[in-house]
Amino acid sequence: MDDITFAVLGTGGIGRRALEVSQHKDHLTPVAACDRHGTAIDFDGLDVDELLAATEGNIDNEVATDGGERTEGSRSSSELRSDGGSAATAADSDGGVKQHGEDRGVVASEQARPSEDPIQDVIDHGDGIDAVLLALPNYEHDFIPRTADRFVEGGYSGVMIDVLKRSRVIDMLDERSETFEDNGITFICGAGATPGLLTGAAALAAQSFVEVESVDIWWGVGLKSGYEDNRGTVREDIAHLPEYDIETARALSDEAIEDIIDDHDGVIEFEDMEHADDVLLERAGVCDAEDVEVGGILDVRSDEKPTTTTVRVTGRTFDGETATNTFQLGDATSMEANVNGPALGYLKAGVRRNRAGEYGVFGPAELMPGF
Amino acid sequence: MDDITFAVLGTGGIGRRALEVSQHKDHLTPVAACDRHGTAIDFDGLDVDELLAATEGNIDNEVATDGGERTEGSRSSSELRSDGGSAATAADSDGGVKQHGEDRGVVASEQARPSEDPIQDVIDHGDGIDAVLLALPNYEHDFIPRTADRFVEGGYSGVMIDVLKRSRVIDMLDERSETFEDNGITFICGAGATPGLLTGAAALAAQSFVEVESVDIWWGVGLKSGYEDNRGTVREDIAHLPEYDIETARALSDEAIEDIIDDHDGVIEFEDMEHADDVLLERAGVCDAEDVEVGGILDVRSDEKPTTTTVRVTGRTFDGETATNTFQLGDATSMEANVNGPALGYLKAGVRRNRAGEYGVFGPAELMPGF
Repeated sequence: MDDITFAVLGTGGIGRRALEVSQHKDHLTPVAACDRHGTAIDFDGLDVDELLAATEGNIDNEVATDGGERTEGSRSSSELRSDGGSAATAADSDGGVKQHGEDRGVVASEQARPSEDPIQDVIDHGDGIDAVLLALPNYEHDFIPRTADRFVEGGYSGVMIDVLKRSRVIDMLDERSETFEDNGITFICGAGATPGLLTGAAALAAQSFVEVESVDIWWGVGLKSGYEDNRGTVREDIAHLPEYDIETARALSDEAIEDIIDDHDGVIEFEDMEHADDVLLERAGVCDAEDVEVGGILDVRSDEKPTTTTVRVTGRTFDGETATNTFQLGDATSMEANVNGPALGYLKAGVRRNRAGEYGVFGPAELMPGF
Repeated sequence: MDDITFAVLGTGGIGRRALEVSQHKDHLTPVAACDRHGTAIDFDGLDVDELLAATEGNIDNEVATDGGERTEGSRSSSELRSDGGSAATAADSDGGVKQHGEDRGVVASEQARPSEDPIQDVIDHGDGIDAVLLALPNYEHDFIPRTADRFVEGGYSGVMIDVLKRSRVIDMLDERSETFEDNGITFICGAGATPGLLTGAAALAAQSFVEVESVDIWWGVGLKSGYEDNRGTVREDIAHLPEYDIETARALSDEAIEDIIDDHDGVIEFEDMEHADDVLLERAGVCDAEDVEVGGILDVRSDEKPTTTTVRVTGRTFDGETATNTFQLGDATSMEANVNGPALGYLKAGVRRNRAGEYGVFGPAELMPGF
């Protein structure tokens, strides 16, 4: 495979880890990274070590408090879209961006410069970017589709890839499928640990069967040392509890989140989650969405996984047997490892599809052998 | 995905099962099938039920006895190549083809006609065939490469796919890579249970890691009721015992094979097999070939698997942990289910690649997300 250049939108937990993991990958060169306040672009390849060191602790948690209390001077995520609003430079905000450098967010890196419209900076350099990883997990649910619209308007053609879990975002992307096809965009959605890695495993495990009866996805995440870096993900998980949805979870204050965690003694169990795994497996023709169940256990007070992440695919073979194929992740693999490795793996697969002229919207399971 | 037409070369155990499994698959139409004696071609789709009923017990075991005792009048596999040699019709041979119909081999089907050169028949109809499954497990090791040469000479462009396990065949195909690229052929090699399904699972399981330390593939096959249909596969497995290689195993008489099986009380354990899994994972960039170990247990006297087929991928995560991801096949999945489902799955993936203009030689793991 030829060399691949990629950009990361968002330098929070996922964006930073994706940059770090990419250093271990052949043929993968990060050339752009941005957050709400600035952009780093270097087509010779970003100096990832410098960028990560300068932005250590750089977690933009602000949008998570949208609708809850807002820090005076903090700004909404709409700034990243820069609809002609006022400048959001490193100097004028003391919002939710936390980092250890002298400056705020990515501009703490000497490779970055402040920008009024960081995403437009990336779009303007789109000709040299094979793939764009949207590492923006916690914005409003139409943020990624509308970001894709901006790339279309800016004439971008290439791969766009997200690690979201939400079925409704996929529906919104699907509405844009024809536009993507017309513009040479291959959009890979849900390409992290789940749905990404685990639906991919389910699609492969299904190959023994002529009919899949059920897919049972059960995950365990221990997040003690990574809790601060992954508050957005925890909030998103809380949105899956029966009492909440994505809007009400987004409206929770940090204190309310902590209260929920305390109520569960730090260990929250999820059943029957509205995860995109089901629609992505149905898209790939593996089974009906209703035959997919997703649940798991999150422990924010231990790094040990509270349960082993397991995918069970039960089906009928052509010769009439019923059996279950199983895929398990080692307990020592962190959530970050299981999100970012697959994200970059699917990014590579997406670039291959894109270069071969396959455009539109794809779930990870659709990149597996056909069922 | 659009509809796919495919041909099966060989109607022994694998070819017949592939036809049967394809009936459960959407968008997959078998349009041609042949054995040494005849060809069935129907672009409206073969009547698989009729073909399977007419050829029940149709196992061409003859080549397995090449070099051993030969039945008078039986013919070597070179006839399938038909280098201008004499006719091999249904009437003139009473060789190793066993079947319950009145006629011999595929010509027992009312859809088939005798042919002096069945493979050429398929090549001559190549324009309407998207993919050719080479279900010829037990011929001499250069038979599939040379069959591919014939398709090239005949102007075929499309997918060719085999379910072989042998590294040396892949090397021979690799030598033809440029020719395939020039002629629009996408050759997928080793696409059965192993290497196919299991190396695919290993490539996916590797996604959690930035470095793979070892891949351990361990299979169990219980073959009592399928023993008669799979003598070729058993012979091929015996070639992996330390005392044998592919030539000496091919030279064994049926009685000698039975003696070996008796010596092992029907249960043969294999360690450190020279399977193509290693080179296919190295091709895909997952690990070095020497880090892959393949072994397993074959029981020809029980349908129960003597051990659970398991793939263990041990690696190091970007954040410094070492862990093992695991893929297990349910014990009730037969070897046939695990060969033919993946073979057709990879066939679909191959057609997609081919239609997108990707030509050359690919292993199953190369069709997975990039590592």
